[in-house]
Amino acid sequence: MAQKPSTPKGTRDFSPQEMLRRKYIFNTIEKVFRTYGFLPLETPAMENLSTLTGKYGEEGDRLIFKVLNSGDWTQGLKLDEIIEETSSAVVKEKEDEKLILFDNSLAGLKDTIRRYLKTRDISEKALRYDLTVPFARYVVQHQNEITFPFKRYQIQPVWRADRPQKGRYREFYQCDADVIGSTSLLNEVDLTSIMVEVFSALGLGVVININHRGVLTALAKLFNAEDRLLEFITVLDKLDKGTIDDVVAEYRNRGFSEKTVNDTSSFLQQIVSLDGDAGDEFDALLRNRFTEAGLSEGIVGLDAVHWIQNIVKKQTKPGLPLPQIYHSLTLARGLDYYTGTIFEVKAAEGTLKSSICGGGRYDDLTGIFGLKNMSGVGISFGADRIYDVLLETEKFPAELGQSTRLLFANFGEAEALHCLKLLRQVRDAGIAAELYPDQVKMAKQFKYADDKGIPFVAIIGENEMKQGIVTVKDMKSGEQKAVKAEELISMIS
Amino acid sequence: MAQKPSTPKGTRDFSPQEMLRRKYIFNTIEKVFRTYGFLPLETPAMENLSTLTGKYGEEGDRLIFKVLNSGDWTQGLKLDEIIEETSSAVVKEKEDEKLILFDNSLAGLKDTIRRYLKTRDISEKALRYDLTVPFARYVVQHQNEITFPFKRYQIQPVWRADRPQKGRYREFYQCDADVIGSTSLLNEVDLTSIMVEVFSALGLGVVININHRGVLTALAKLFNAEDRLLEFITVLDKLDKGTIDDVVAEYRNRGFSEKTVNDTSSFLQQIVSLDGDAGDEFDALLRNRFTEAGLSEGIVGLDAVHWIQNIVKKQTKPGLPLPQIYHSLTLARGLDYYTGTIFEVKAAEGTLKSSICGGGRYDDLTGIFGLKNMSGVGISFGADRIYDVLLETEKFPAELGQSTRLLFANFGEAEALHCLKLLRQVRDAGIAAELYPDQVKMAKQFKYADDKGIPFVAIIGENEMKQGIVTVKDMKSGEQKAVKAEELISMIS
Repeated sequence: MAQKPSTPKGTRDFSPQEMLRRKYIFNTIEKVFRTYGFLPLETPAMENLSTLTGKYGEEGDRLIFKVLNSGDWTQGLKLDEIIEETSSAVVKEKEDEKLILFDNSLAGLKDTIRRYLKTRDISEKALRYDLTVPFARYVVQHQNEITFPFKRYQIQPVWRADRPQKGRYREFYQCDADVIGSTSLLNEVDLTSIMVEVFSALGLGVVININHRGVLTALAKLFNAEDRLLEFITVLDKLDKGTIDDVVAEYRNRGFSEKTVNDTSSFLQQIVSLDGDAGDEFDALLRNRFTEAGLSEGIVGLDAVHWIQNIVKKQTKPGLPLPQIYHSLTLARGLDYYTGTIFEVKAAEGTLKSSICGGGRYDDLTGIFGLKNMSGVGISFGADRIYDVLLETEKFPAELGQSTRLLFANFGEAEALHCLKLLRQVRDAGIAAELYPDQVKMAKQFKYADDKGIPFVAIIGENEMKQGIVTVKDMKSGEQKAVKAEELISMIS
Repeated sequence: MAQKPSTPKGTRDFSPQEMLRRKYIFNTIEKVFRTYGFLPLETPAMENLSTLTGKYGEEGDRLIFKVLNSGDWTQGLKLDEIIEETSSAVVKEKEDEKLILFDNSLAGLKDTIRRYLKTRDISEKALRYDLTVPFARYVVQHQNEITFPFKRYQIQPVWRADRPQKGRYREFYQCDADVIGSTSLLNEVDLTSIMVEVFSALGLGVVININHRGVLTALAKLFNAEDRLLEFITVLDKLDKGTIDDVVAEYRNRGFSEKTVNDTSSFLQQIVSLDGDAGDEFDALLRNRFTEAGLSEGIVGLDAVHWIQNIVKKQTKPGLPLPQIYHSLTLARGLDYYTGTIFEVKAAEGTLKSSICGGGRYDDLTGIFGLKNMSGVGISFGADRIYDVLLETEKFPAELGQSTRLLFANFGEAEALHCLKLLRQVRDAGIAAELYPDQVKMAKQFKYADDKGIPFVAIIGENEMKQGIVTVKDMKSGEQKAVKAEELISMIS
């Protein structure tokens, strides 16, 4: 029966140590969400396959984990049925006109296999791929119970059948906050403030990039690439990871016109020299170009980005450094999804280059489920990546939530029963405490305290029992001190 | 494109209101677990199919949700391959000796289908069915990193392809605490205290039943049913839901000997007249029977149950009623699993008859993964059932975690920008607050506050801005009061 146990490829166990750190991240994010009036929501891990397919593009569809319909697949019974039915169909026809019916039987065979094995027969459910589509499904399904604008947060795992690699898992958590049913930019202000506040609470320096679909559309028009908008922007977005030469080469390879290639190239040269917090100069340049060309969506986009930036910066507490919020005009993040503002956050510390939070405004999300004209805006924190950055930059606090502060050593039944009364008092005081359950060598009990990071061990032998005292060992300094039972709680808390 | 959206059968969405209540349950349980020195653990939703199959009996295996292997099943491509390969094999052979090869081709066809479609080809992963088997897998896999005794808790959903019905879902949460690597009954004492403490914190009256495998084995021996131990006990366990006559009839139907049936029947008559908290009398009766028959495992079991009961009761705070902890000698809860103590908790209020918490000691759990001699004991809270009971008995507190306390009404851009500064101050004070994002009719804004249960609305129009005041409306009493901006926080907190 013995098997070498493991978890499936791309999935992980989280040890107590890792869990305490993860909970610290989740709790920090959740606390900020709550302060901003977002309320929790959860949807099931499984959605109907039809809810998910067609929402994430062809590549996305392939990465959805499908769940086999219930039934005794393990024992292969359904398969035996199929094989039985298939072969008896063939055999039956065989007894008549051989060759012709043989061909018919082949067709029949194909039909039989198809009938039993079409995906919708094998699988009608799938694991959620993100939190946004299930959220849209929820909003449409429950639209009559919801008061809009609806502000919800959702912290749950998602699953993707991606090729596992460093930092990419097949099960990972998303922490989303969305407002649906309001077009006001004040929502964008709140979401930006949430990003500032979460990373400030985690002690992590970040850069927040903001862009707007209007700016991207205007750029594509400016360089005569309007007919290939999506492609134009997708290439532009790569400036983030490559050089201008790479981007220009890709435009040329993809057969964009020489005029588009050259205009874009010289424009990029110009803005790269200004990018970052060059602010006013950069803005003026874009604004002029858009105005000259009569591209009002570009102006709308620029105004939105600057309005958000300015208001969030105004809210910074006096004396604190201003949050780093930049306008990144190449930021796109899956353009076919976002229709307004686009957000992305990267760590300003550590070596991780990819984003740790992102989001934007979408106007048509619930439309796919039949509810039109419902604009939403949301952000999503990547808890797993934030974990990696905090670990690398050593930003996790030493104390993470409540763990055992006191271990009562076990010297045998009489002593243990004596300890139980004290243990009860310590726990009633809200302090996590344990009695070592077995009477084993002290070295082993001390090792247990050490491994578990328990700071104090209470030693109560025959003497201590008689005198009504407790010898407390400080595991860090190694010092031992005898205190009265009544003093125990104040000593360790 | 429009689809009527829904969740898969037996699964549920949890609205903000439901989530706040669920979190209250989870947080209460988690806080108690922590106080007792248990630390969090999480395992992936998917386990290797081989980890799960064969662990839950035949019926259990059928209820495991299997996940389809990655690949383009959606488009039916894999199936087309199978059909192509299958038919070309048949056609090829057809060209030779027809009838004989026709038979061969059928065999070949069967092989081909089998080869492609054995479950281990379709599915190698499955959704976890409970938290215990993944925990055992974790312990074996990480045995060299773990310090024993290992005390962990785990609060995660599990999935079962059960027929959905009232109170039974296909996705539900389990909240488990286990100690592994210690045989001491002090662990049972801790777990019993945890049950007492959790339900006391939730304000719910409960009955805790305890039994011991030794008692069950001794009973089976006493009535000459040792050779059909499991069956004997399974029937006995039904006394919980039926009458003695039902149980006796079932023994007879199943062909137990007349002696077994009659002896068991008269014994049951005798104990039913004593059951409940008859304590001493009941114990004496059993103890005598076991002693006379030389059934030492029965005595060991009785001693264990009474020891746990007495110690936990001793820990009750003076003045509080003693927790209701009974010895239920028919309690079995899946006997093939538990090897020592067995626990079960039922609500003493409301109409729910099934258990809301259960557990016990298991000696061989990690053995299935190759790690012998590792005794464990654990309990599992059924959060969904606890939710139902608390809702029915109206035990949920009115205030559940932090929700928005103040809504700033929106009178237009100038007023909104003015409010943002105050909003920042309120949030910085740790109070959840919102600014209504759109400038719409006041009636709509008040309705939003009402629906969301926001107790205060701040009204800041032109006048208030000029005078530096805030008009605060108490949504419950309907009263309005003008306060200075500085007084706002103390007023609403």
